[in-house]
This record gives sequence, structure tokens and C-alpha cells, in this order.
Amino acid sequence: MDTPIRDVITIGAGPSALTAAIYTTREDIDTVLYEKSAIGGLAAITDMVDNYPGFPDGIEGMTLAGNLEKQAERFGAHIEYGDVTAIKADGKYKVVTVDGADVKAKAVLIATGSDYKKLGVPGEKEFYGRGVHYCATCDGAFYRDKTLVVVGGGNSALQEAIFLTRYTTHIDLLVRSTIKASDVLQHEIQKYVDEGKVTIHLNTTTDEIIDTNGRVSSVKITENGQPAEIITDGIFVFVGLMPNTGFLADSPIELDEVGLIRTDLKLRTSMEGVYASGDVRSGATMQIASAVGEGAAAALSIREYLDEFNRTEAAA
Amino acid sequence: MDTPIRDVITIGAGPSALTAAIYTTREDIDTVLYEKSAIGGLAAITDMVDNYPGFPDGIEGMTLAGNLEKQAERFGAHIEYGDVTAIKADGKYKVVTVDGADVKAKAVLIATGSDYKKLGVPGEKEFYGRGVHYCATCDGAFYRDKTLVVVGGGNSALQEAIFLTRYTTHIDLLVRSTIKASDVLQHEIQKYVDEGKVTIHLNTTTDEIIDTNGRVSSVKITENGQPAEIITDGIFVFVGLMPNTGFLADSPIELDEVGLIRTDLKLRTSMEGVYASGDVRSGATMQIASAVGEGAAAALSIREYLDEFNRTEAAA
Repeated sequence: MDTPIRDVITIGAGPSALTAAIYTTREDIDTVLYEKSAIGGLAAITDMVDNYPGFPDGIEGMTLAGNLEKQAERFGAHIEYGDVTAIKADGKYKVVTVDGADVKAKAVLIATGSDYKKLGVPGEKEFYGRGVHYCATCDGAFYRDKTLVVVGGGNSALQEAIFLTRYTTHIDLLVRSTIKASDVLQHEIQKYVDEGKVTIHLNTTTDEIIDTNGRVSSVKITENGQPAEIITDGIFVFVGLMPNTGFLADSPIELDEVGLIRTDLKLRTSMEGVYASGDVRSGATMQIASAVGEGAAAALSIREYLDEFNRTEAAA
Repeated sequence: MDTPIRDVITIGAGPSALTAAIYTTREDIDTVLYEKSAIGGLAAITDMVDNYPGFPDGIEGMTLAGNLEKQAERFGAHIEYGDVTAIKADGKYKVVTVDGADVKAKAVLIATGSDYKKLGVPGEKEFYGRGVHYCATCDGAFYRDKTLVVVGGGNSALQEAIFLTRYTTHIDLLVRSTIKASDVLQHEIQKYVDEGKVTIHLNTTTDEIIDTNGRVSSVKITENGQPAEIITDGIFVFVGLMPNTGFLADSPIELDEVGLIRTDLKLRTSMEGVYASGDVRSGATMQIASAVGEGAAAALSIREYLDEFNRTEAAA
């Protein structure tokens, strides 16, 4: 049995894919989005988004995600739940495997995003976005004149801890073993240590995040084998990023050293007719504004590709 | 007398610059925006914005512009009216000439946008965004099952006319002299001419845009020397783009063949410490979503630059 051929499949239905779908469907380009977890992506599970342009007082992540979904559906986007496990070429078409079944399309946009690596400790999930954070640019400004715990000992943990000093009165930096960061960053954080603004705890595991009346109030740790508790207003975790690109293992799509998808300025991947945008793209800023901007740009690139595709098809 | 040195100057205060300012000022980076015409840029003078992600039913351009301005000011952005006429380097600082006076900064973002070339005929200004349009991707979808006049005979005019056929019942294409577009496009538009969906008027000037009760209803033309009138629901003008980069004539900043600013993936121009984003950037999509996305990305690049700048300064 022949399945219908879609114009565009987006893998993922976060802000970048939803924006692309607003653009494609508004131009009557048939578009289906496959999402395996939350429509709206990380935005949907963010408490408050303060820096998405257009909302002067900020907007709840869930509301923003709902708005994006409604807008895409208003123009005719089909959003479906489904787990994409493979993408391959079939002649000039692309075949995407969704929940074990194959779906064919002329073009594909990969916008599966990235997840922040978690500590996996009690309290972490419960207070996500409300005391437990993974993005200093997004949520640091909520901690003016407050104290923070930062977890991690790599380049990004040190960089973000240094960044967060502009807001906080004090930071406890919890490092599982020893610091593995560049000399420049180690030298720079030392200045804050000397000023008494940062305290570094080496050989320290983060064991539990504790709340008082629903607000994060302390973190239980084990430092050099000894249990302890640190009073804090919030905790930022920087232990790595997990791009959602595992399903591309058998594809010819080129990834960078951390598993993000390489694209050119037109957001084309190394596989013809396949595009990538948002947090899954190499060089991504992990910002909704950028994900949305790239979604629009990807849609315009895809439209150009489809115009050429249809011209060739008509001529054949 | 020494003037204070700003962290960041943005030239322009459209969506891209305002977004960059939301990001920089939220991180306590001192930022001043100089705007010579409308705060909010082209968005501010657009009647209805249908495809800016986050507003399911669209948003008035003026309201969106106002929101962006409020959001940037909420975090401490300084928005000032002023005409920037030059940018030059002074050691490691940049000097920007505003209304004849010099202002110094560590980094500069050029986000002056581009303007659509106008016909300069009666009715054009009055019905801007409400019957007279310059962007098919933005406003084409408002003309489903309606008739249109399209003005222009170059590649972009033909491309956009072909694009608009997906919405409209009929298009009159007004070409001042003869068509100057690629063979592929000429071949393709001929198909629509054969179907009776497009009528091409060569040697035709567009003389006046006429309304009935405040809605565009016809266009007065002169075709082969004979005056005539075409009944229509709207008019799209594609006679060229004017990047607002005239003030860069004496700067070392590299432009492309149409005068847009070349940047790399990090939105750096060819002048160190000077960035460009939005509609003034080579490769720009002329979409608010992309301008905003690039504004955020530029701010993050600038922050990185300032971190390094301040480190070097402290070490000196």
C-alpha cells in the first residue's frame, strides 16, 4: 500500500519546528511534525521565559509553547506524537521511520533539540525551572542578590559560574572530583574565590535538593566522604548537553564532536533535502529566540528546495 | 572633556537591536541604541504581523514594536534618537558619530535594517501594509482568493509573483520596460500566463494607487503610452532593496554586491568588535523572527567578546 508523500516532515515539535511549520503551512506546504515527548520542547517545561522578545513582562513557558502550537495549527500543521528512529534516502525522497512505520517526504527538518544532562538526584525533577536550572543566560537574572549552588567542574560550569557572579552574592561550586577547565577560566574563578564570592568544593557529590514550603532551600552533599548541607536560593547544573541525535547513528548526516548537527548558513545538513535548526544544530545558542529565528530561516530554505524539487518533478 | 565609554552601541532600534539589548542589559551590559526613524523598525509600521511566533492570532506591528521596546527598557536599555553617520576604530575602542558628536564603545552592533525601494506614487505611502506590500512571505497569505497587482520585472518580482499565485485568483504583473529575469523564472511564469492566471503588462508605469472607502481598489497605469486602470485587491511592489549601510562607505566593513553587511556564523563583521544582525545582514530573510533570533545570537557573541576585552583590560 502506498502511503501519501508529505511535503515536509519535521522531527520534533519544539519552538524551532513549530516556527518552521507556521511558515511552511501558511504557504500551503503540507507539513507534519512528529514529537516524542512535549510539544513546545524545553520551552513547555520552563517556568517563566523572561527573554523571549515580544512579551515585556515575560511569559510562562507553557503558555508560549501553547501559543506556538495554536499558531502552527491555525495554518494547518499536523502535529503527531511519534518516536522517529531513522532517516534514509529513497531516490529523491526521504523516508523517516516513526514508531516502526515508514513515512515519505520531499524534505525533512530535524529540530529535536538537546537535553541538559541531569544529576539524577531527589528534588531535581520536582523543582526543574523553579529553583533547579540548567541555563545561566535564561535564568541567572532571577537570582540577583541571592545565593546559588553551581554543579560541575568543566569549562562550561566555570564559565557559567563566573557569569552568575554578576547577579549573586555567593556561589558554592560543587565539583565531583577535580576541576577540568582551561587555565584562563581557573585563573579567573580564583579571583572570585580570593574575594570570598565563590567557594569551591572538590571531591563533592550532590545528593539531594531540599525545599522548604515548595521553594529550594538547601542542597545535601558529601564532601570528601563527609555529609553536609548548603543553604541556597537555587542550583544551576552544568554537567553537559545531550543532543537528541542518537537516531542519526546510521544516517550520513554529519555531526560535530559533541553530537550536534553541522549545517551551512542556509541550515542545510550534509544530506540533501534535510535541514536542521534550533538547539540540535552545531553552534546553537540554546535560546528560544534563536531557535525560532532559525526555524523561520529553515522554512524559507526548504521552500526554495521544494520549488526546485517540484520543477524537476514536473519536467520529468 | 571625556565622554563615558559605553559597553555596547547598537545602530538602529528595530526588532534585532531591541532583542540584542534585551539580552545584553539583562546581563548588566551597558547598552545604548541609536535610532534615526522608528523604534521597532519596519515592524512598527506594519499593520498586522501574522507569522511572528508566539501570537496565534497575529499581532499589530505597532503593538509588537512597543512590546519589544518596553522589554528592552525594563532591563535598562537606553534608546535614543540619533543619526549615525560614521564608525571608526580608536585603538581597541569603536567611535560612532551620532548627530555630529562622537560616542565611544567597546563593541558595536549594526542593525539598521533595509528598506524596500518605493515607487513614489500617490497612495503608496497611505496604504503601506494595508493594500500596498513589499514582502510576499509576510503578507501574501492575506490575499487568498483575491486579485493582485505585482510591480517589477527582475528576478525577485517574478519569483514573488509565482509564489503569490498559490493564493490569488489572478495577478497583473506591471513591468516598466522589459523583463530582466532568469530563463528559468521566465519559463515558469509563462505557464501561469498560459493558464490565464497571470497577465504581463510590458512598457507599463504604475501611476497611482486608488482606494474606495479606505481600501485599495485599483491601480492607475500607463501601458504603451495609453492610460488605463486595473481593478485589484492589493499591490505588491518588488523593485529592489536599499540596505541602510550608506554610513559605512568610509569604514573597512565588508559589504556584499547589494550593499548588505557580510558576517560569519557568529555575526562578526570584518571589523573587530563590530557585529551585524537582522535585515542589514547579507543573507537576511527579511523576517522579524529571524531578525530577533540573530539579535539574541549577536548579543551572546558580543558578551563573549566583552569578556575577553575586559580580561585583557584588567591584565594591562
